[in-house]
Amino acid sequence: MPTTAADFRDWARHGQTRVELALQRLLPSNEIAPQRLHQAMRYAVLGGGKRVRPLLALAAGELTQANGARVELAAAAVELIHAYSLVHDDLPCMDDDVLRRGKPTCHMQYDEATALLAGDALQALAFQVLAEQRLARRAEDQLQMVALLAQASGSRGMAGGQAIDLASVGKSLTVPELEFMHIHKTGALIRAAVLLGARCGRGMEDDELASLDHFAKCVGLAFQVVDDTLDAEASTATLGKTAGKDAERNKPTFVSALGAAGARDLAQELRQSAYAALDGFGSAAQRLRQLADFIVQREF
Amino acid sequence: MPTTAADFRDWARHGQTRVELALQRLLPSNEIAPQRLHQAMRYAVLGGGKRVRPLLALAAGELTQANGARVELAAAAVELIHAYSLVHDDLPCMDDDVLRRGKPTCHMQYDEATALLAGDALQALAFQVLAEQRLARRAEDQLQMVALLAQASGSRGMAGGQAIDLASVGKSLTVPELEFMHIHKTGALIRAAVLLGARCGRGMEDDELASLDHFAKCVGLAFQVVDDTLDAEASTATLGKTAGKDAERNKPTFVSALGAAGARDLAQELRQSAYAALDGFGSAAQRLRQLADFIVQREF
Repeated sequence: MPTTAADFRDWARHGQTRVELALQRLLPSNEIAPQRLHQAMRYAVLGGGKRVRPLLALAAGELTQANGARVELAAAAVELIHAYSLVHDDLPCMDDDVLRRGKPTCHMQYDEATALLAGDALQALAFQVLAEQRLARRAEDQLQMVALLAQASGSRGMAGGQAIDLASVGKSLTVPELEFMHIHKTGALIRAAVLLGARCGRGMEDDELASLDHFAKCVGLAFQVVDDTLDAEASTATLGKTAGKDAERNKPTFVSALGAAGARDLAQELRQSAYAALDGFGSAAQRLRQLADFIVQREF
Repeated sequence: MPTTAADFRDWARHGQTRVELALQRLLPSNEIAPQRLHQAMRYAVLGGGKRVRPLLALAAGELTQANGARVELAAAAVELIHAYSLVHDDLPCMDDDVLRRGKPTCHMQYDEATALLAGDALQALAFQVLAEQRLARRAEDQLQMVALLAQASGSRGMAGGQAIDLASVGKSLTVPELEFMHIHKTGALIRAAVLLGARCGRGMEDDELASLDHFAKCVGLAFQVVDDTLDAEASTATLGKTAGKDAERNKPTFVSALGAAGARDLAQELRQSAYAALDGFGSAAQRLRQLADFIVQREF
């Protein structure tokens, strides 16, 4: 059973390549009309990002012995939703950002209208990918996967979290309020990544699903806690996106609520809870544990 | 079998009420957090619009003896996609419009960020509605319905049509080029409405599906041809949205390409083709015929 850091890096790099190839194949070619829209979609999705959500989907698929090609599609669908949310989040009426993944944001590279439509079309493509080919053993299960991704993306998931985030600028939030915001904004889609990956494989008992769900909630929140510490402490060059935005915009974060050390402690606690949730799975969950480590220890 | 205009008006009014009630039920309450987002979503969807797409879905469901509650959900899903597209289309970076369905547009009533997120969340809700409850006899068929709506909404459907529309401003298009644009921008979702409504009911033979598809393409294009003539000829008060926009923005339309009389002739030809496509269905397609009449004869 793999345990070394080098082994994990190889696995992650291989997983990123698999997802990149799937995304390249799923996104319409630059040559297909409307070309500019398809160029903007590919620009927003390909060749960048840590691919944390797809890797979680792949690792969860390994846990349930899922067919590799099926999990790649589920992973790609989640990443398409993530990519569309970044494109819309960077628009002038939202975070008004010019840099993403070390490149000009989509609306800087193209224009606002094209970025808006590219985001819209990426969301539609995510659901197309999740419905067009068989991914689960039973079609009933796959319909539930579609519903799960829709819930995670919508007003009671990611889009709702972004609305709460916007409304919180300039306010002081308690840690429970911050958790509520991020369980929606970041957590919902990370949770969807884990559950969709797992559901491509063998059937799961209710208690297994509940454990996996708890793992996903812990790493989802840990991801955001670490994001907040990185925004406060890392450089724009390291992050590939504008650093220090939260403080500049007077946004409440886990760092502003707990201090940098307190936020790092919370991230470690969440990692321990995530580990504990996987106890029943033994070595089959090794990649998920390593991803929890990566999410907490990453420096970008 | 119903044939009078009064009977059709009663049927349409009843159908609009059914869809309105379904949408009211499906949209999260104003009281659920994030409240402002949910208010904006309800504002954008409820209490307005001709509901042409949902009526087409209901009529197609009657053709295949579909369960009424199921078709209402399929009709609502299509209308949620349509409503989100209007919210995004009205944004300053797109058509920059202030009036829609006789009310301030969503971003005027709320703000741009809320309107952007409301549109995003409405798209997600459409797919949730289409996947969460059983709508087709077989789950496999329902997955195909999800894929169909995603294709119709995405870069090779509605969103792609809007991109072509944006790129066409100030250009002179031929009638085939105009048709290509509108088959995507308006036609794809109208086609989805007909096919999704029909697929809630009995299984259809390939030739039946092909006929229904041809009907849908004809009425979809006719809808846009009539829209162009209304934009050129009707008043803002009658339309509930800003009239005369196309000429003001130097947008190519069927009126600019064919003249007003030529556009009206084309709409009549398309109605005849739509009628012909329904020949094999007999009286079961009566509501679809009446809707084709309504689409071509409407004055708003």
